[in-house]
Amino acid sequence: MVGGGEGAFIGGVHRMAARLDGHWDLVAGNFQSDPDKSIAFGKSMGLAPDRAYADFRSMAAAEAKRADRIDAVAIVTPNSTHHAIAREFLTAGIPVICDKPLTITRRHADDLADLVATTGLPFILTHNYSGYAMPRQARAMIEAGELGNLRIVQAEYAQDWLATELSGNKQADWRGDPARAGPGGALGDIATHAFQLAEFVTGLKTETIAADLEAFVPGRKIDDNVNIMLRFNGGAKGMLWASQVATGSVNGLKLRVFGDKGGLEWAQETPETLLFTPLGGQQRILRRGGAGVSASATHATRVPGGHPEGYLEGFAQIYTDAAELIRAHGENRAPRAFGRLAPGLSDGVRGVAFIEAAIASSNANGAWTKIV
Amino acid sequence: MVGGGEGAFIGGVHRMAARLDGHWDLVAGNFQSDPDKSIAFGKSMGLAPDRAYADFRSMAAAEAKRADRIDAVAIVTPNSTHHAIAREFLTAGIPVICDKPLTITRRHADDLADLVATTGLPFILTHNYSGYAMPRQARAMIEAGELGNLRIVQAEYAQDWLATELSGNKQADWRGDPARAGPGGALGDIATHAFQLAEFVTGLKTETIAADLEAFVPGRKIDDNVNIMLRFNGGAKGMLWASQVATGSVNGLKLRVFGDKGGLEWAQETPETLLFTPLGGQQRILRRGGAGVSASATHATRVPGGHPEGYLEGFAQIYTDAAELIRAHGENRAPRAFGRLAPGLSDGVRGVAFIEAAIASSNANGAWTKIV
Amino acid sequence: MVGGGEGAFIGGVHRMAARLDGHWDLVAGNFQSDPDKSIAFGKSMGLAPDRAYADFRSMAAAEAKRADRIDAVAIVTPNSTHHAIAREFLTAGIPVICDKPLTITRRHADDLADLVATTGLPFILTHNYSGYAMPRQARAMIEAGELGNLRIVQAEYAQDWLATELSGNKQADWRGDPARAGPGGALGDIATHAFQLAEFVTGLKTETIAADLEAFVPGRKIDDNVNIMLRFNGGAKGMLWASQVATGSVNGLKLRVFGDKGGLEWAQETPETLLFTPLGGQQRILRRGGAGVSASATHATRVPGGHPEGYLEGFAQIYTDAAELIRAHGENRAPRAFGRLAPGLSDGVRGVAFIEAAIASSNANGAWTKIV
Amino acid sequence: MVGGGEGAFIGGVHRMAARLDGHWDLVAGNFQSDPDKSIAFGKSMGLAPDRAYADFRSMAAAEAKRADRIDAVAIVTPNSTHHAIAREFLTAGIPVICDKPLTITRRHADDLADLVATTGLPFILTHNYSGYAMPRQARAMIEAGELGNLRIVQAEYAQDWLATELSGNKQADWRGDPARAGPGGALGDIATHAFQLAEFVTGLKTETIAADLEAFVPGRKIDDNVNIMLRFNGGAKGMLWASQVATGSVNGLKLRVFGDKGGLEWAQETPETLLFTPLGGQQRILRRGGAGVSASATHATRVPGGHPEGYLEGFAQIYTDAAELIRAHGENRAPRAFGRLAPGLSDGVRGVAFIEAAIASSNANGAWTKIV
Repeated sequence: MVGGGEGAFIGGVHRMAARLDGHWDLVAGNFQSDPDKSIAFGKSMGLAPDRAYADFRSMAAAEAKRADRIDAVAIVTPNSTHHAIAREFLTAGIPVICDKPLTITRRHADDLADLVATTGLPFILTHNYSGYAMPRQARAMIEAGELGNLRIVQAEYAQDWLATELSGNKQADWRGDPARAGPGGALGDIATHAFQLAEFVTGLKTETIAADLEAFVPGRKIDDNVNIMLRFNGGAKGMLWASQVATGSVNGLKLRVFGDKGGLEWAQETPETLLFTPLGGQQRILRRGGAGVSASATHATRVPGGHPEGYLEGFAQIYTDAAELIRAHGENRAPRAFGRLAPGLSDGVRGVAFIEAAIASSNANGAWTKIV
Repeated sequence: MVGGGEGAFIGGVHRMAARLDGHWDLVAGNFQSDPDKSIAFGKSMGLAPDRAYADFRSMAAAEAKRADRIDAVAIVTPNSTHHAIAREFLTAGIPVICDKPLTITRRHADDLADLVATTGLPFILTHNYSGYAMPRQARAMIEAGELGNLRIVQAEYAQDWLATELSGNKQADWRGDPARAGPGGALGDIATHAFQLAEFVTGLKTETIAADLEAFVPGRKIDDNVNIMLRFNGGAKGMLWASQVATGSVNGLKLRVFGDKGGLEWAQETPETLLFTPLGGQQRILRRGGAGVSASATHATRVPGGHPEGYLEGFAQIYTDAAELIRAHGENRAPRAFGRLAPGLSDGVRGVAFIEAAIASSNANGAWTKIV
Repeated sequence: MVGGGEGAFIGGVHRMAARLDGHWDLVAGNFQSDPDKSIAFGKSMGLAPDRAYADFRSMAAAEAKRADRIDAVAIVTPNSTHHAIAREFLTAGIPVICDKPLTITRRHADDLADLVATTGLPFILTHNYSGYAMPRQARAMIEAGELGNLRIVQAEYAQDWLATELSGNKQADWRGDPARAGPGGALGDIATHAFQLAEFVTGLKTETIAADLEAFVPGRKIDDNVNIMLRFNGGAKGMLWASQVATGSVNGLKLRVFGDKGGLEWAQETPETLLFTPLGGQQRILRRGGAGVSASATHATRVPGGHPEGYLEGFAQIYTDAAELIRAHGENRAPRAFGRLAPGLSDGVRGVAFIEAAIASSNANGAWTKIV
Repeated sequence: MVGGGEGAFIGGVHRMAARLDGHWDLVAGNFQSDPDKSIAFGKSMGLAPDRAYADFRSMAAAEAKRADRIDAVAIVTPNSTHHAIAREFLTAGIPVICDKPLTITRRHADDLADLVATTGLPFILTHNYSGYAMPRQARAMIEAGELGNLRIVQAEYAQDWLATELSGNKQADWRGDPARAGPGGALGDIATHAFQLAEFVTGLKTETIAADLEAFVPGRKIDDNVNIMLRFNGGAKGMLWASQVATGSVNGLKLRVFGDKGGLEWAQETPETLLFTPLGGQQRILRRGGAGVSASATHATRVPGGHPEGYLEGFAQIYTDAAELIRAHGENRAPRAFGRLAPGLSDGVRGVAFIEAAIASSNANGAWTKIV
């Protein structure tokens, strides 16, 4: 692992998620930019002393040489550093599991894409919400035509933890600093999740967008509220709202999809169920582990329905799928079916393209802008 | 009443709503364009034979001369006819209760505005959703500053009853015909409700909008899906989605408002409660008839909390407020406080301006367009 | 109407409910025990002066002689007076619509039953919750065998308005006085509703019960909390909980029924939907006005689904069904199908028997006691 | 671990729960009664060959002698075997984490209680639902007097997976066999959870109960539906319903508590929130990780509110608390505050006493029976 030391949020999440299904052990890491703190933190995690590294470059170099080298590196640092770290490990021949957004520039994203194409190494991007069972159920139903031709996609992701200026909060600090977070605020941090989930579930591609970004909190340098209209290939339309100042919202990622044969609704805060209404029929509550659920959703299931799985289980699914992709790569075989559902490099490139298009559109007063 | 004969939906609603609180009796009407059918329908409603009229002009003329003339006329006809009918009754000195949208052109709307200004007659527009108790509670809380400065307004109104072509359905037929419904489809029929409710609750004015209208059902002449980004006076921003093809949605009008001190959420299908979260505090379920509810919401209450009031009660509230406005006018006094919450001519003019701006914006590929 | 004067709650509800569907006008009444106040109140309601009566006996006598006599009397007085008033009007040949519980003794209930049998007059008991559309849907589904053999019936009715001593509250005062309310508190006031609804929906008869009644508020003379275990004919079992001291509960009437082929759940505070799960299948949200709804539920429907109907509409349905029963009686014909769903004398007798059995069981420390 | 081999459900849950927080590694086990299968399964779990044991007695003996002996044994076998296995490990000086119910006879439960008292060894019973954050929040609020004097406790636990005879299902088979499950069916399997949770949250003791047990599915030897009335010390009353044949229910454990100052509601299927209503006030949605949450609930929290924690996290909490209890015991110090919230031997003894009282009461036709 690179990143995730004292005071970090997402590093601990990655560690729990990696542990849950029993496919991963933490054996090496560079957890903080301060070398001494990094080494001390690694030891506190129970690592062998020679695998608690002072910096990521020495880690990549040293691990590459070991017989018992790491199977993959998890990168959980601020956005601006993803590129250099991922590049270092890929170059060293080590698969990468990377937090989103992939990079803070399109150039960097393309560079990683080239590198992955050249090396053939597995690269997994932790758009963790696509690891939940019921979005996978939704995807399977849409793929099977149960919604017919898609017309409308409504995505939203509302939080409120940045409703006021938070100084001295480590999470808030780097996310509010364009040098570390990149040019998008709520845009990069959460709108990209909604965007990825919408494309993951629908199988559509967003062609053009019209955006209106805003920073409501005085003094904030990057957006904290994102209004976007969407146009998809095939004619579907939609809207995407992301906000970190929507007072009273906690982690409100929600997706609604409507086709000419049916409609679906899923919300991250109640992840166990999916509402489905066939045209002219009764609304149904589909349940993880319940009747009529797809093989792909069952694959993302640990315990029976009614025994709630949540955020960590969804995140763990990405790690489990990553394990399969990396094992398959090591064994030089095709990965089993559902491992391929893990988000990867192309999701990352699209995410960065989405961020850039949204900023360009908003700067052009909402002009429709292509996602290339 | 003018309109609301055989096969009509909203006419019957108006009659039930008018009856509920005991302020109104139906005593005269012209219910259908066919004179014989109109007279027969009036008699079936128990009207005196001489007050079941063959056409609205003779009704206005005859009623104006009676000592026991009607206190007001309710106009529940297709949109395109509102102007002529309202003009006729106002000219005859009779107050008007009119369905929305007010008219199908801005010129007509302004004409009625002039006429109302000249005659001083009460004019009530049945944006019935602002008759519910809890939107009035929301308005009172925002007025009292409990949300602080408003930042975000998210409005939506999703239905699915026009998800396929409905031929031979009287409601669908006229709503799909620009000559009778006006230039807006879902835009005029339901987006105007969401727009009015947003301005009613927040006290804000929408200054400019960027719209993307679509007709998804093949052969449909006017929009059935409406995506709009909103900018309000004072800097708040928002989005408005209205659809009549959102499969699985029934009558999903919903409003969310977020300020720097708190957030609110209300949904028409569960109208009895209002979710309120003060910044940094616990979420509260405010309930009609419950603790801490405003005088204006209590005014719009008939039975104790937990005994659900619904659509007809909200609609009845408009009729009850209308009764107070008309009585006050007749008695040459100021109406009591909450009667003034009934929507009126200015809501109607803004609604028509909103429709025209949305169409203009959409025709200009989503260019930001002023609502004048 | 007898009862329902100044400060009464249920009288106003009856008047609104009676008006809503247009079958009833209020034309005569004795509203309060004080003759002058009764007459004054009647006039304030717009009654003809000679039909605002000083007492119910003179009202029954006078109305019986009129050519335009009332079609029925609505009795909305405290429980202890139902018997005498109903007896008076039935004897005068006038149909009765009576609030529940029917009487405060079984002897009185049987006396009315005899009188109704002898006179053949319509008698409707306003167990209003059985007027909602979705309990009727539930009844139709169970009748059609969609739940299979019933096994479990869970009924509850939780309120909190009597969680503390309320002195000076007119509603609380008479309900807490055994002389006026009868021997049951929450038992008579709300448990009877839950009991009637359970039998109405399931078609089962409760054979024996084991009860544990309690008065939690110090000084209270009759129960405010009711715990009962139920055994039904055919072997189903269940529990019934009713409370008026369940802090935080408003008007929480809820019914759940489980058979060997499916299960149902309905809650009065969200009356528009019914949850249905077929054995091994997906849970479905059935909706008033929605797909697959029975003719009997459609009969109890005024406006389309998504336009919430509530407490007054459910109550109005009882008045509408009563109108059909009374018209049919006047026209000497069988009532149309769904009119017969209105609760009547036999529900009233069973309710009184239930009250008496519950008190007897609780006095015998929860011994299983027959409802005869 | 003893138990939890091929086809087991709860063994895998224990393993995931133990792993999640990083306090436990699986290093030894006897997973199945067949020695070869047990050893093979252990190896498949990655155990050292000499720690994949053929039977639990040799495991206890061998582990007791090792320097790196197990810190505790997790017993996840059918109920009837808990006593012998726990006795063996306690006698060998090894702390125990045991599935519930503790034993199938009171004599066995008392024997373990004596043994734990004598040895002083930590003993944790996995009543996992008390590991969720929000029941701990509820307990803290009640302890702090926020509900005032408790009056009413309503507990229920509804499932439907045994609504029909399931032959050949390993889970169903042993649970339906009194020799392995003990004399209670739903009573031992799930009613004990509801009972423990009610006492854990309220701090009350159930003094007497009146029970009506039923086996609805033909041929079933032990109860599948449990109706119980409860009387608590201090005068509170309540009801407990547990069913495994409530068609449409999944894992519906729910607890409601009402005092003279407030009321609470928690449901296991939506574990992240707790509804609280102070007397006369607005209902509040308390949220794990949200405003105003107790230290004890925060202790049971991994990720921020809105990132749902679920069943495995609640279960993991018991393992984390167990780790603290066992570490404290090893270090001969008092455990830190919240570790003590883990359920233990006394919960187990009460659970067995509850089962026996319920069966005795039901056999005596619902006579009130003491829980001794």
